[in-house]
Amino acid sequence: MDLNADLGESFGSWTMGDDASMFRIVSSANVACGFHAGDPLTMLDSCRAAFELDVRVGAHVGYRDLAGFGRRSLDMTFDELFGDVLYQLGALDGMAHAVGASVDYVKPHGALYNRIVRDAEQAEAVVAAVHAYDPGLPVLGLPGSAWLTLAEESGHPVFREAFVDRAYLPDGTLVPRTQEGSVLHDPEAVVAQAVRLATRKEVLAIDGTVVPVQADSLCIHGDTPGAVNMAAAVREGLEKAGVEIEAFA
Amino acid sequence: MDLNADLGESFGSWTMGDDASMFRIVSSANVACGFHAGDPLTMLDSCRAAFELDVRVGAHVGYRDLAGFGRRSLDMTFDELFGDVLYQLGALDGMAHAVGASVDYVKPHGALYNRIVRDAEQAEAVVAAVHAYDPGLPVLGLPGSAWLTLAEESGHPVFREAFVDRAYLPDGTLVPRTQEGSVLHDPEAVVAQAVRLATRKEVLAIDGTVVPVQADSLCIHGDTPGAVNMAAAVREGLEKAGVEIEAFA
Amino acid sequence: MDLNADLGESFGSWTMGDDASMFRIVSSANVACGFHAGDPLTMLDSCRAAFELDVRVGAHVGYRDLAGFGRRSLDMTFDELFGDVLYQLGALDGMAHAVGASVDYVKPHGALYNRIVRDAEQAEAVVAAVHAYDPGLPVLGLPGSAWLTLAEESGHPVFREAFVDRAYLPDGTLVPRTQEGSVLHDPEAVVAQAVRLATRKEVLAIDGTVVPVQADSLCIHGDTPGAVNMAAAVREGLEKAGVEIEAFA
Amino acid sequence: MDLNADLGESFGSWTMGDDASMFRIVSSANVACGFHAGDPLTMLDSCRAAFELDVRVGAHVGYRDLAGFGRRSLDMTFDELFGDVLYQLGALDGMAHAVGASVDYVKPHGALYNRIVRDAEQAEAVVAAVHAYDPGLPVLGLPGSAWLTLAEESGHPVFREAFVDRAYLPDGTLVPRTQEGSVLHDPEAVVAQAVRLATRKEVLAIDGTVVPVQADSLCIHGDTPGAVNMAAAVREGLEKAGVEIEAFA
Repeated sequence: MDLNADLGESFGSWTMGDDASMFRIVSSANVACGFHAGDPLTMLDSCRAAFELDVRVGAHVGYRDLAGFGRRSLDMTFDELFGDVLYQLGALDGMAHAVGASVDYVKPHGALYNRIVRDAEQAEAVVAAVHAYDPGLPVLGLPGSAWLTLAEESGHPVFREAFVDRAYLPDGTLVPRTQEGSVLHDPEAVVAQAVRLATRKEVLAIDGTVVPVQADSLCIHGDTPGAVNMAAAVREGLEKAGVEIEAFA
Repeated sequence: MDLNADLGESFGSWTMGDDASMFRIVSSANVACGFHAGDPLTMLDSCRAAFELDVRVGAHVGYRDLAGFGRRSLDMTFDELFGDVLYQLGALDGMAHAVGASVDYVKPHGALYNRIVRDAEQAEAVVAAVHAYDPGLPVLGLPGSAWLTLAEESGHPVFREAFVDRAYLPDGTLVPRTQEGSVLHDPEAVVAQAVRLATRKEVLAIDGTVVPVQADSLCIHGDTPGAVNMAAAVREGLEKAGVEIEAFA
Repeated sequence: MDLNADLGESFGSWTMGDDASMFRIVSSANVACGFHAGDPLTMLDSCRAAFELDVRVGAHVGYRDLAGFGRRSLDMTFDELFGDVLYQLGALDGMAHAVGASVDYVKPHGALYNRIVRDAEQAEAVVAAVHAYDPGLPVLGLPGSAWLTLAEESGHPVFREAFVDRAYLPDGTLVPRTQEGSVLHDPEAVVAQAVRLATRKEVLAIDGTVVPVQADSLCIHGDTPGAVNMAAAVREGLEKAGVEIEAFA
Repeated sequence: MDLNADLGESFGSWTMGDDASMFRIVSSANVACGFHAGDPLTMLDSCRAAFELDVRVGAHVGYRDLAGFGRRSLDMTFDELFGDVLYQLGALDGMAHAVGASVDYVKPHGALYNRIVRDAEQAEAVVAAVHAYDPGLPVLGLPGSAWLTLAEESGHPVFREAFVDRAYLPDGTLVPRTQEGSVLHDPEAVVAQAVRLATRKEVLAIDGTVVPVQADSLCIHGDTPGAVNMAAAVREGLEKAGVEIEAFA
């Protein structure tokens, strides 16, 4: 099972997260590409760390919005978004190659990730940009989202992720963040959900139902000290359960 | 002889220059990469135009300074500049590939171009970044500049440019812009200098001396209506003199 | 009757519009404040021109989006938008005061202008920011828009604008841009609409109905050579009809 | 004696320093204005904190360089720098007024601070901008620097700062950072220097000489946990020595 996390989110003199620790926990790193976070030096350092620790690099493409960290939905035309995704992808891939690594998948960030769960035009733009860059470059996203479905239908390689610390509804979608209980905070519950997802391909929904979830990767977080400990616990729990942590392929 | 010009310098809703005309005059286009000019859509359009008209694409890398158009010298560490050049190069190359083209050379822009004529550390950073990206990717610059010498000494392919509208000193360097007569405004004089550079590999210096100049490319401008006419006259003059306009290789 | 136009929309080396001409036509200038357009030097120059030509300066506040020129709707929290509006307003007012002028009203730009016609939270944030800056500083906008209604209800001074080149529906709202005939291109029709709005406080709707429109200001455009000629024609037409052009107060 | 520190240096989702603690230690806060750090919300929060805790707000103006945190020297024309300083000053002052506070002084940041110790043109631009904004608004800087001298000579109110953790040369200037021993790390030595500066208007230079230093304010730092403890120790040490901490006036 693959473990992915958002890394390389520092910018200039500002640091975010404990990347040094997280690069030792994950098998796939979603590296910010400069539009919502990630200056060129941070990107380069992330590619180097990934290369040395045998972690897969993904292009974490987002809206051009440093002030909002890419977390604010932005109206864009197809062409604008196509261009912005391609630009970020090329920039990170160029840096990766310069240090012997490569971009091995693409995962949209923040508000863009959420928007293309439903927004057909922006979904198409993202898929088209990745496809134009490399028709064989996998995309990673939420099962059932508009953009992932679109990618799959157009024959583009698709990988699906599940969340170890988010509650699920009986239909397999996430409990909205606005609803109570949407995020799991208890480490034991989180580890249990991770192991269940990895070993049984299912999750215990918020109402107690058992729901099948096909996931190629588990998304974990590392932006707080608590998060890093949780992430380490998830990895340890998976390994104890006999799950090998390795990048999807 | 190659003709190069700075193109793709629009940004968002702001237009600069008459790219449609200039792409039909040049054989090499220095395309801005987003740091001093050039949003992703403009970059993409420039790559498409270059591909259709068989014009070579160069990465016109500059300081991260939209407000100053990359024309203000900026102190940067080796690592920072290395990262910024690599980022811009990868971004443009990714876009170029998406439309069937490729980045075929690198030329620094504005204040960076001027600074690495002498600044050893920044010169090294630019050369190292291009080399890390692709040791076979040519660089284009001012003969005798620190960075071009450095590139040459490290075995990196180097091309040299001359200026059709700048006055030269007897030692083969340019008359500083602060000095009277530094820029040629008379179209006949400009065309004559272009033809002389292309056919005899020499230039008439400001004091009347004949100075040998080895140039692989002639730099022309296109940011004003007058400039476009001048550029067209240069191309026409060269062709009348039997000079074939084609990208250096 | 007041004539307002968007001015000061250049940025760094990029020029937009023919401000020199437009400052002689309008009585109120909506000056960009650096977030969607307008670098500090352009802002300063606009304030100087306004002061010399006795034109009123308005803060044309917009989304932080140079690449999209503030024309792309952006999700923002109340606090974020409150801060962004206040920041832009203070910046322009500081510049205005330094040259003997002052910011005399606020008009939102582009996507923000359109969004707060309906979006209650963003409308509130804009009104609250202007009110926090100066409860007596007028706002200028579309009659019937959520934010203008809100401002009026909270006792904030409000001025309403009408459009000389937009077709109106029988209910007094604008024909959506997506609909045929939404924009008037015929100079005579535009001038006629301007005169009718100014002298009779009414407009001929797209279906021929006569609709009452209370406008304190007429919005004109100046971003193309054609637009400047149209703007000049509108001013001339109004003056011929005995309408005095002067800033609302 | 006044204690000043750089605060409000967060940006969007990125946090810098422990402002909550520092606002309880200083009497003057140099608040970043958005060009090198400080988004509008952070600026607003800083103004609010300053107002509540009776701390004086200074505009910490810097180069437009988020990626470099304003720590990289930038060539700018007089007009460009004049505009950039005025813009930042107006923006922060507008925010301050909205919460009942005001900008009470100006202190340049980072590379700008260092550059105008000697660069006459940039020094003039900064002084001219503050003067144009308000001829009575004090500036705070390094004694003997070009810009402070210029401000003083033009009748502008000037305040001088000294550094509690920097070693001094016998001529009263700072030991360059490139030289060993330039920064004091021992808390006792730092507190002792602070007390000596405040009570005897002198400092023990690196060679043991006693050097007179006229300082209206002591600059302290707060960007690391260690720095905050040091800052608290300095305040405590000063108070024990009978020095009252209060903003200069």
